[in-house]
This record gives sequence, structure tokens and C-alpha cells, in this order.
Amino acid sequence: MYNRINILGSDRMGKMSYISNFEDWQESFSFNITIKVRFNETDMFGHMNNTVPFTYFEEARIEYLKHLGFMQEWVSLDSEVIPVVADLQCDFLQQVYFDDKIDVFVKVNSIGNSSIDVHYMGVNEKGMVCFTGRNSLVNLNRATGRSEKWKTEWKDKLENELNIVQKV
Amino acid sequence: MYNRINILGSDRMGKMSYISNFEDWQESFSFNITIKVRFNETDMFGHMNNTVPFTYFEEARIEYLKHLGFMQEWVSLDSEVIPVVADLQCDFLQQVYFDDKIDVFVKVNSIGNSSIDVHYMGVNEKGMVCFTGRNSLVNLNRATGRSEKWKTEWKDKLENELNIVQKV
Amino acid sequence: MYNRINILGSDRMGKMSYISNFEDWQESFSFNITIKVRFNETDMFGHMNNTVPFTYFEEARIEYLKHLGFMQEWVSLDSEVIPVVADLQCDFLQQVYFDDKIDVFVKVNSIGNSSIDVHYMGVNEKGMVCFTGRNSLVNLNRATGRSEKWKTEWKDKLENELNIVQKV
Amino acid sequence: MYNRINILGSDRMGKMSYISNFEDWQESFSFNITIKVRFNETDMFGHMNNTVPFTYFEEARIEYLKHLGFMQEWVSLDSEVIPVVADLQCDFLQQVYFDDKIDVFVKVNSIGNSSIDVHYMGVNEKGMVCFTGRNSLVNLNRATGRSEKWKTEWKDKLENELNIVQKV
Repeated sequence: MYNRINILGSDRMGKMSYISNFEDWQESFSFNITIKVRFNETDMFGHMNNTVPFTYFEEARIEYLKHLGFMQEWVSLDSEVIPVVADLQCDFLQQVYFDDKIDVFVKVNSIGNSSIDVHYMGVNEKGMVCFTGRNSLVNLNRATGRSEKWKTEWKDKLENELNIVQKV
Repeated sequence: MYNRINILGSDRMGKMSYISNFEDWQESFSFNITIKVRFNETDMFGHMNNTVPFTYFEEARIEYLKHLGFMQEWVSLDSEVIPVVADLQCDFLQQVYFDDKIDVFVKVNSIGNSSIDVHYMGVNEKGMVCFTGRNSLVNLNRATGRSEKWKTEWKDKLENELNIVQKV
Repeated sequence: MYNRINILGSDRMGKMSYISNFEDWQESFSFNITIKVRFNETDMFGHMNNTVPFTYFEEARIEYLKHLGFMQEWVSLDSEVIPVVADLQCDFLQQVYFDDKIDVFVKVNSIGNSSIDVHYMGVNEKGMVCFTGRNSLVNLNRATGRSEKWKTEWKDKLENELNIVQKV
Repeated sequence: MYNRINILGSDRMGKMSYISNFEDWQESFSFNITIKVRFNETDMFGHMNNTVPFTYFEEARIEYLKHLGFMQEWVSLDSEVIPVVADLQCDFLQQVYFDDKIDVFVKVNSIGNSSIDVHYMGVNEKGMVCFTGRNSLVNLNRATGRSEKWKTEWKDKLENELNIVQKV
């Protein structure tokens, strides 16, 4: 289905309950990957299928977690804890087309005892925000299957990220 | 990433802001498709990748819209209006594995002047709810690029669906 | 890109080196699954993207291997041997569109000491062959990383399949 | 399914009927894109699913056609001719894993009156050839649905590419 039409963008800003002030929010990101929309990611309505941004979110999140040094431990075979995606959310603001280059920004938005709230923003080459999103990522103990408190070292790193975000 | 572990389910119930009473909500669906999780929909963590349910939502929504008789007009070449996915949301409650057969339920949850809120529920063969979701679908005028009020005939059909849901 | 246009079909028959007589070949299948082309499997040229049939081949092959009783051993954790896809091939004969229901047929075409040649045929609701394909599947020893001869029991099963095919 | 195991590579070299001399062939490419294997492109056997390289081939082919200046005309709305993928083929030589960076090389291998044979080679960061492939791309007349001879200008460009390849 049509993802949306340009005018929809302005109509919808403010409807994303996870964003209190769009301009502040937009400026609070400092990490991104760049992706190019693939031909097989379009659909018969002529643009990026609406299931695709979640793939971009996953790649952005993984690169960000690598950058923070978390991913390495999480994917090691003897790791006691693993990252669990508890939910996923995306708001579509602008059409995205084949061959568009999209900067997919990612940041930690808030930190719980055993989880983080991760935010995403996709920006096209004209500087327009095409889609926004968020998800909750839980630190899970493999043996117990229950969420596990962040190690002090990790919590410090995460809070440092939050400070960076707030200072920007 | 790991989507979640069983115990997570009960932890998360009640966190889905679009569901007020989970049991009532669960019983309010009357339309579903059944899908089988494909091998290439798994990832290296051994289960369904978390981007996949949005594909299932799309198929369920399309079949439901066909059932309501909307899809036919929406996809006809001379249609003045088209359906636009304005946002997408999914909560993961239980692990989903290769070859699982999932009933993906879909319903209209509320009706606006020019949009509907669509809800989804994925249930495995053991009767466990594996994921829930929702999205807003907007009736868009192709020429103006703006949302367009539902035709009386369609609004009646949608409200009829809502009645079915509430009576169940 | 456009996968092909109807007329192409007849032009190409006979170009598939793995099929000696198309009519005989077509009648030699006795196992199939049925898939429905998903919306997100289309691309901006309006039909099924050409990467998609390989997903259908995989599902058809797995169901067929289950039917033969191979899959169960191959996916058991203590299995010494695993199936390896050594190559994949697809010829496109007819356009395939969203919502098309395709019967994807699969058969063993020939048996080597440690591998089988698997053939595929996709047929739409009008009875037209839309795509054909094949791949080599190797029985691999996990420990040595080398191909391993079929067990007598499995070779017998496979040869029985070949007989069924030849008798049809 | 397991795509293959390292040792398979050397076993299979020479089985690819579209490659006469592997070393000459390997050196005949001069254009490539680089892709990173995405998390959702892996499957439960722990590596890149075998349907994925066809997506990479498509992206490499499109970038190459852009580079040759063909794509622009082919995708313009008033173009009389369009590119049609008539078949697709891939041979798997080495395992490919999440996060691998793969150089996907592409070249014109031969030129027919109305089609070209396109070859592909995927090379990992260690310089190992992980997969090879080919497909036939047909120049189709939109109105007649029949293949159409290359324009002199395009044929010259294609033959120039062939010369580059042969000189390398």
C-alpha cells in the first residue's frame, strides 16, 4: 500500500507519542548509517515497501551497539545475556523511492534497569525526515529467560550516551 | 537479535497502550489468515526475524480489505483514493520458529473521518499470542495528496465491522 | 527489472539445458506446494521480483524433504550430515503478479553418490508454467566438511522417487 | 539449508559451465559494488540465506547499467524498450556470514542481437570467491512484447565493454 504522500508529513508530526518536541528530538542524534533503497525493497505501488525500514533500524541498531562495544559481548557464544527486541514502531512521514540514499540515525532515548528505549530517524538527501521509529531492547539472561539489570560498566556507557544526546 | 523469551510475554502484557483489556481484545477478532514461517524468515539467532510480522500484517490487512470489498476499488487504476499506511507497530510476546503455523487475526479497532485504526494478533498452534500490533490506514485522495473523508457506503461498512467486533 | 513478457515463454523453451523434453518433464512431477504471491514480493515494475522464486523453491524443497522423511534427520541437532545447496538456477517464462496462486512442483531429477539434482516448476492458476528451476543438493559430513555418500536407506528412497517420476 | 562448506569450493570449480577458465574469468571483471551482509539476510543455519545473492546481483547489475548509461533510458516512462531478466543462476563456493563485506563484481560476458549475458562474482575480504553467477538480460519492446535488436549506439557501448574485459 501507499506508504504516505508528502503532505501527510506535516499532518502527522506531533502524533508520535515518543517525540515531545520534534526539532529538539531531530537534533539529538549523533550516530547514523547510510543505506541505499534496493530495487527489491520497492513494491508495485512504486516506492519502498512499508516493512523495509525495520530492516534499516536493525542494521543501524547493530552498528550503534558495535560502536558502543556491546554487540561484541552480546554475540559471543559464552555470553550470559542477550539483547531482545520487545517491540518495534515506525511512523511514515515522506515517500521513499528506489535508489534514495537514506541516513538512518539511531540513539538511546532512555535507560531502564534492564532495558533501553532506542529511537530512529530516516533522513533523505534533501534533508527531509522520511520516517521515525523506536523500540525497546531488553537485556535478557539466557539461563533464566528473565530480564537482567545492566552491569555498572554498561549502564555508565549508556548514561554517557544519554548525556551526549542531552548536551547536543 | 533475540525477539524475546517466553517469560517476557506476561511481563509485557499491559504495556501495549493500544490494548485496554487484553482478554476482551483477544476475543474481539473474527477474521484471520494462516501463515507458515518460512526458512528464509528466520535469522542466525534461530527464530523468525523481528522484521517479518509486518509482512504478515500486510497480507492479513489486504485479505481483510478484500473481504470488506475495499481493496478492489483501491487498486483499480482509476480510483481517486488510495490506502496509505501512516504508521506500524508490533509487540513481541513469544518466540516464533521456522515452520510454525501462525493465525494472523486482523480487525478495525476505530474509525476516524478519513482513517481507520487496524489491530493485529498472531497466535501459534498452541493458542499462545506471539505478537500483537496495530497501524493507522489513511484514505488518501490521489490528486490532492490529502486525506479524504470516507464515502458514506464505506463508513457504514466499517461501522458494521466495529459492531461485529463489539458484539463478540 | 521486468522479469519477462508472455511471448518470451515460447522463445525460451528449449533453452533450459536441464530439460530435454519439456512436455515429458512437465508431467514428471507429483509433489507440490501452493503459494500466494505477497504484496511485498512485488517490485516497482508491478510484478513479482525475480529474486522471489528462490524462496518458493526453498519452501517446496523443504516440504518435499519432510515428505521423504529426510528433513527430520537433517535438522536434528546430533545429525552427522546436513544438506548443502551447491547451486541455484531459475528460468522465467511468464509474468507473475501480486496475489497469483502458484503451484510450485518439486522432484528429484537424478541421484549422485552424495548429491541429488532437484527440479522445480511454478504453474499459475491458468495452468501456464511461469518459471522452472533446478539446484544441486549435497549430503555433507559436518565433521569433515566433505560430501558423504548416501546411506543405503536414503538412496533407496531417492531411487524410489526417481521410479515414481519415470513411471508417471 | 547450509549453503556449502569451504572444501566444497575447490570441488565445484570447473562445474560452472559458464566459466571456461576460472583464473582468466576472475581477472576479467573491472566493475563492482560492495555490500555488507545484513542480519536479516542470515538464516537459522547461521549464515547468509542462499536466496540473498540474487538481490546483490540485481543491485550490482543496476549500478553497472547506470554506469553504462542504459538504466536511465530503460526506466524513463516513455522508453519503448525495457530490460527483462530471462534467467538467473548462482553457484555457492564459500560460506558467507553476517557482517561480511562482499565485493560483487559484474560484467557483460557476451552480446546477442537483443540480449546480453551478464556474469557475477562475489569476493569476501580475504579475497576468496564466495559465489559466482550469471543471467541473460533481454532488450524487450514494450508494445510488441518481443525482444528488440540493440540500437547501434548501445551495441557499440556493449562491445566496448567486452573489449575492456578481453584486454584485462
